[in-house]
Amino acid sequence: MASVVRQCCSYRTLKRRLPILAWLPQYSFQWLRMDLLAGVTVGLTVVPQALAYAEIAGLPVQYGLYSSFIGCFVYCFLGTSKDITLGPTAIMSLLVASYACHDPVYAVLLAFLCGCIQLTMGILHLGFLVDFISYPVIKGFTSSAALTIGFGQVKNILGLCDIPRQFFREVYYTFHNIAETRVGDLVLGLVCVFLLVLLKMMKNQLPERSGHQPFLNRVCSNIVRFTGTARNAVVVVAASLVAYSFESQDQHVFTLTGKAARGLPPFRLPSFSDSVSNGTVCFTEMLQNFGAGLAVVPLVGFLESIAIAKAFGSANILGSFLSSYPVTGSFGRTAVNSQTGVRSPAGGIATGVVVLLSLAFLTPLFFYIPKAALAAVIICAVSAVFDLRIVAVLWRVKRLDLLPFLASFLGCFWEIQYGILAGIALSGTILFFNIARPEIKISDYGTVIVQLQSGLNFPAVEYVCDQLYQRLLEASPPSSVILDCLHVSSIDYTTVNGLRELIQTFQRKKVCLLFSNFQPKILSILTSAEIEGLRHFDSTEAALRHLHGDDYTHNLEESEEPLLNRHEGFYS
Amino acid sequence: MASVVRQCCSYRTLKRRLPILAWLPQYSFQWLRMDLLAGVTVGLTVVPQALAYAEIAGLPVQYGLYSSFIGCFVYCFLGTSKDITLGPTAIMSLLVASYACHDPVYAVLLAFLCGCIQLTMGILHLGFLVDFISYPVIKGFTSSAALTIGFGQVKNILGLCDIPRQFFREVYYTFHNIAETRVGDLVLGLVCVFLLVLLKMMKNQLPERSGHQPFLNRVCSNIVRFTGTARNAVVVVAASLVAYSFESQDQHVFTLTGKAARGLPPFRLPSFSDSVSNGTVCFTEMLQNFGAGLAVVPLVGFLESIAIAKAFGSANILGSFLSSYPVTGSFGRTAVNSQTGVRSPAGGIATGVVVLLSLAFLTPLFFYIPKAALAAVIICAVSAVFDLRIVAVLWRVKRLDLLPFLASFLGCFWEIQYGILAGIALSGTILFFNIARPEIKISDYGTVIVQLQSGLNFPAVEYVCDQLYQRLLEASPPSSVILDCLHVSSIDYTTVNGLRELIQTFQRKKVCLLFSNFQPKILSILTSAEIEGLRHFDSTEAALRHLHGDDYTHNLEESEEPLLNRHEGFYS
Repeated sequence: MASVVRQCCSYRTLKRRLPILAWLPQYSFQWLRMDLLAGVTVGLTVVPQALAYAEIAGLPVQYGLYSSFIGCFVYCFLGTSKDITLGPTAIMSLLVASYACHDPVYAVLLAFLCGCIQLTMGILHLGFLVDFISYPVIKGFTSSAALTIGFGQVKNILGLCDIPRQFFREVYYTFHNIAETRVGDLVLGLVCVFLLVLLKMMKNQLPERSGHQPFLNRVCSNIVRFTGTARNAVVVVAASLVAYSFESQDQHVFTLTGKAARGLPPFRLPSFSDSVSNGTVCFTEMLQNFGAGLAVVPLVGFLESIAIAKAFGSANILGSFLSSYPVTGSFGRTAVNSQTGVRSPAGGIATGVVVLLSLAFLTPLFFYIPKAALAAVIICAVSAVFDLRIVAVLWRVKRLDLLPFLASFLGCFWEIQYGILAGIALSGTILFFNIARPEIKISDYGTVIVQLQSGLNFPAVEYVCDQLYQRLLEASPPSSVILDCLHVSSIDYTTVNGLRELIQTFQRKKVCLLFSNFQPKILSILTSAEIEGLRHFDSTEAALRHLHGDDYTHNLEESEEPLLNRHEGFYS
Repeated sequence: MASVVRQCCSYRTLKRRLPILAWLPQYSFQWLRMDLLAGVTVGLTVVPQALAYAEIAGLPVQYGLYSSFIGCFVYCFLGTSKDITLGPTAIMSLLVASYACHDPVYAVLLAFLCGCIQLTMGILHLGFLVDFISYPVIKGFTSSAALTIGFGQVKNILGLCDIPRQFFREVYYTFHNIAETRVGDLVLGLVCVFLLVLLKMMKNQLPERSGHQPFLNRVCSNIVRFTGTARNAVVVVAASLVAYSFESQDQHVFTLTGKAARGLPPFRLPSFSDSVSNGTVCFTEMLQNFGAGLAVVPLVGFLESIAIAKAFGSANILGSFLSSYPVTGSFGRTAVNSQTGVRSPAGGIATGVVVLLSLAFLTPLFFYIPKAALAAVIICAVSAVFDLRIVAVLWRVKRLDLLPFLASFLGCFWEIQYGILAGIALSGTILFFNIARPEIKISDYGTVIVQLQSGLNFPAVEYVCDQLYQRLLEASPPSSVILDCLHVSSIDYTTVNGLRELIQTFQRKKVCLLFSNFQPKILSILTSAEIEGLRHFDSTEAALRHLHGDDYTHNLEESEEPLLNRHEGFYS
């Protein structure tokens, strides 16, 4: 007892629970320099993205920034990977749009509940349930979401307004209203996309850093590298300057972001009711409105990154006190972080400070950001996620896996929760079918040897027994049977019961049934169940020797044809 | 192509689809005699049970009989087992009571939908999903249902009325109103229970049939055997006679069944809407009212007997045209059928005719059946199902399985669907945890040999890879690794992808990773995925020989301690 308490309170346990203790003691000035650089670079990426993602989520722009800083601080204390950055992501914003009905009160409450569910899953060790979402399902969902998000920005590049948000209607009305395209938005949007792609390519073309280059070369390549990495900020700032110069001459050629609330969000409990024009919506009604969102949002939160339930859950709960909507790990910014050479999770503090500063001082300037520029940022961010090459790979490797992929890909256009659920259900069904209907190999050497090709989980028991009855007992005369259970790795009461019935049936029909190759732990469970007539041998050879004597097994390996006449009536 | 058509139309396929063709050609007079006897005996059991079960289902008594004959006829054509009898059962009636709201229109529509769902499951080969309901869950559910049904009849034995049907309130009000007990009902009920138990025991005490007994002995024991087998009918008829003699003297000491509609049910489509006092309930509303019933009722239909989707589905659909509520295979009557020596499914025709005759001619007499006698029939029928010995067995064999048992047992008192779902969810979680977190055995012989103790299904991949990274790559210096995949029996794209990442990570860290013991079909999938750097050997020994040369493996089996120094930097 005392040792348990000591173990719980030991420095090692504390370090596991609060990972900052693992790296803080080694922190150095060199690390600080690198973390600062990386943190600020990520900050320059996250600020324009946050504004754009708030648009996807259907919330006022400042909510994107509200969601962007608390994750950085939380992850600094609880995070185990130096690279990961928490914050709003395109896909999560899409989910928030569909579950929070474009109402900040709903979005913030969703963050709180999502955090609670994630924390609970972490505490109950239910994270393994996330592993039942297979890779094809994730690929289908993310590709579908990327296409939905990307196409959703086409209207901003064209400068169209009043386009509905449901995917199919959005596509229809975008093309229907295409004649109303505003030239200014279109030109600016295309230029921004072009610039973003160009800057990214330039950065990728740069040679590796080395000390042997001349000073001027080094400075130039550093400038290119920095502009390339912070390209989102560069492009948005440039586009805003252009927009400002036009606006100051009273020429309204661009659709602008408009007014954003200034200052930091208040620290307060999320609101558990919502006041609408005709009264108040109570908590249970809000819960019902979330519906499947309460399952989908926390799960997707785990999907986009490694399952760190603790950090993600805490970030969402704390975030909801600061008007954040649900956040998760961002692939894109994690890559930026890693490439800029971050050394510890402390980099997140720099990122968080950049976001806070922009909230405090830059919000009046956000007015002039053209929506087309933000749309360009989003399109470039999600284009990396859209990837249909997997179809060819699945076709080559495992065609059956195309089913869950397609279900998830196509279903998500209709509604995200249906797509994900259909994908999970299909890949689950394939998995469950394999579990419930294991392959059985039957070879006849006079004595029939039955090999289970995989484990014997409870859903498979009745099937295996039925197969044995049909294929062995109905033969006339039935021969002795050895059931090779090499691959059986776990056993429960349903299985024990099935084996008991199997043995009884064989005894009743007076056919000899031997077992071989049970693992010791399985055997001890079977022993505790006191099954009458269970006869086990450590190997199939030993069982064969028991039936036929020594000389029999010698030839067994070499010959494929039946070696002895049928051995009949062992029990008779 | 032609051969496929020929195969589809062959006599053998036809025989599989219409099993009557398999036994009809061999039918003999001797069989007819036995089938007639057994069929009539089952008929004498089913008629009183049907009246009683209609009471459980909360429907007018004749609906029990409506549900009792069509299953017999259908099973005669489609059935594969000579013993099974289809019809109303106590547990199914309990489900009908909770989902059909005591309204015959709902009950009949439920039968139709249940049949459609069962047929669909049969056609899509989804029967394997039923296997995911483990034995402890079934036991918990049936014991709970038996207790609910049995206690529900106590009020009829006590002659109480106006007792609510929800279990907890039923218990409360039965004891609350116990002072209002009617002596006549109580005495009659107890006498009936006593008689039923006595007759059953007498029958069980009879010696085996043999030709050597004197004639008088044989006659006596045949009378006892018949009375024992048809004890339900005997007791109900006797009780009705007693009741009639009292009633004819205008002494109302027993609660009687009362008026039952006479004659056969009409043949018509089930009604897809319901007219209530204040308007009409449309089909979609009725569907919503069924709710989870549409999953639970078809599943339980499969549970109570072997999953013969075709026969059960057809019986329910056809039955719904004849005002039947959902039916399934009856354990009790199947036993009666088997013990009376039925020879073919044709016995069902005799049973069906008995039911039809009683519907046509006996309904006026049903008026006099005392409710207490029917309650006695039910209590004796369900007492065999209630069985808590499994708790002791589970405690001894596999304690973890007590959880799904208890969830299902206790949950079903509250509401059946929650109990079953909680049980399935718990046993599923235990199973899924084993699948997602397989045991890994790591042994260090200089080279580390990692043995997967069970299959590598997709939910397990990330976990296994993480374990290998944590336990092998973080060692310094890391040693070469052989991953023994003997137990891997199926593989999908998520797994392939995980293995690809595993190999890449080991290559990046310049640690040698070899695979061994893949089955040929697995290996061919891995080959088609063109994984770079996959190095496979047919056995762990071959992999070891490749790393260390021949002499190494010789000693391996005998020694447990590391045999060679660490083998470092195979890739370097």
